Amino acid sequence: MSEIQKGWVVIAGLGPGSDRMVTAEVQDVLAEATDVVGYVPYVQRIAPRDGLTLHASDNRVEVDRATHALQMAAEGRRVVVVSSGDPGVFAMASAVFEALEAGPDAWQRLDIRVLPGITAMLAAAAAIGAPLGHDFAAINLSDNLKPWELIERRLQLVGEAGLAMAFYNPRSKSRPHQFARALEVLRAACGEETLITFARDVTKPGQTLLTLPLRDARPEMADMRTVVIVGNRDTRRVGPYVYTPRFAPGHQPKTPDGQAS
Amino acid sequence: MSEIQKGWVVIAGLGPGSDRMVTAEVQDVLAEATDVVGYVPYVQRIAPRDGLTLHASDNRVEVDRATHALQMAAEGRRVVVVSSGDPGVFAMASAVFEALEAGPDAWQRLDIRVLPGITAMLAAAAAIGAPLGHDFAAINLSDNLKPWELIERRLQLVGEAGLAMAFYNPRSKSRPHQFARALEVLRAACGEETLITFARDVTKPGQTLLTLPLRDARPEMADMRTVVIVGNRDTRRVGPYVYTPRFAPGHQPKTPDGQAS
Repeated sequence: MSEIQKGWVVIAGLGPGSDRMVTAEVQDVLAEATDVVGYVPYVQRIAPRDGLTLHASDNRVEVDRATHALQMAAEGRRVVVVSSGDPGVFAMASAVFEALEAGPDAWQRLDIRVLPGITAMLAAAAAIGAPLGHDFAAINLSDNLKPWELIERRLQLVGEAGLAMAFYNPRSKSRPHQFARALEVLRAACGEETLITFARDVTKPGQTLLTLPLRDARPEMADMRTVVIVGNRDTRRVGPYVYTPRFAPGHQPKTPDGQAS
Repeated sequence: MSEIQKGWVVIAGLGPGSDRMVTAEVQDVLAEATDVVGYVPYVQRIAPRDGLTLHASDNRVEVDRATHALQMAAEGRRVVVVSSGDPGVFAMASAVFEALEAGPDAWQRLDIRVLPGITAMLAAAAAIGAPLGHDFAAINLSDNLKPWELIERRLQLVGEAGLAMAFYNPRSKSRPHQFARALEVLRAACGEETLITFARDVTKPGQTLLTLPLRDARPEMADMRTVVIVGNRDTRRVGPYVYTPRFAPGHQPKTPDGQAS
């Protein structure tokens, strides 16, 4: 009979798509697992082998998937819950802890670990230069998670604060019009000349990168495979690159040679 | 004579400290390099070998270090500029593009790439659970980069927006008192019960994690080796973990089973 302490759950990030961005510790834990749980396209990235059961599911059952993983671990199985990118950034880690909170108290003694990964916004930023090199916010534009009014309010406040931004889930078939409204709010809060980047299929063979001023951005430039990055008012181009300087404009650093800390 | 197109600069993230979090693509590029440039403790993480020159510098000369890297690449050398974590998050990538903008136009034809890494805030978040599982901001608290008044304003606006936050460079010997003021601002903007985590030496042998309500936080809990994470008002504990739920409280998801996208 399996004992509860022999099982475990690791919530692991596979990175944005490229095999070369998966960390060694994630590879190690996949080699030790008996079960892998996740959304179909992420589970498809795991090489099948003897002794490993792959449980691929639709994207609409995150908390059920999390509960299933915890149940299997409680039965002694070694379960990896896979997310794209980093599992703690709009991915499966929170869902697992929500399921944990809703589950039997005994589950809180399970061995549960989270292994970080390369999240999409940082892969997208690296692909174009360094647009997130100054203060920035990561915001999920899906109104499944919070009311649209709250999303708009956040865009306004974060824009007013002068932060750059990265948007996950910017636009989907079920809500094609809200991103147009998001662009209106951003133009008002950040200025029409502020640069916006649409980074689609980042690190995958079909990767596309498009940077233009907010003035010229159109909603159809984003879909669910796109990470959107909006700079701040200092974000600029140099050659083919886009970057945000480390220093607020006009600010005199206190140490010689511009130490950023 | 070296031709300009044979050299390159890769700005690479080494992750927060653990060797197991360095991506394969970063390892590959280090194996091809002729020169590595960076702050002393990061260059110390690179194994010496024949054909590789290590250029370790003090942390106060970031833009000079970047200029040196570009000069060497223009001479045909294959240069990796190393940062801890992700190079585009309060690290060397922006400094390199600043140096590029200030340099000769010919440098803009150099082969320059940025390779993402596991940034400290995501390693810290993974170490405690999923505190950044909802919208969040990354803010550098060093007033070398921007006036303190702007930092305070950003804390207030971001707190008002209900985002979680991660702070880089929270407190240093040259500015020991500002973090106390930051805590005051956060208590007012986020509420005294909101959870704050001090994650020090994340992924290193001496790693420590401390989570408590803002009410009980003290400035000396942070130093330059600490990443500070502040939750939002919904961030909570379950067992030994700390996480932020995906959904705004009271929000009814539109799709069954709580799809987060």
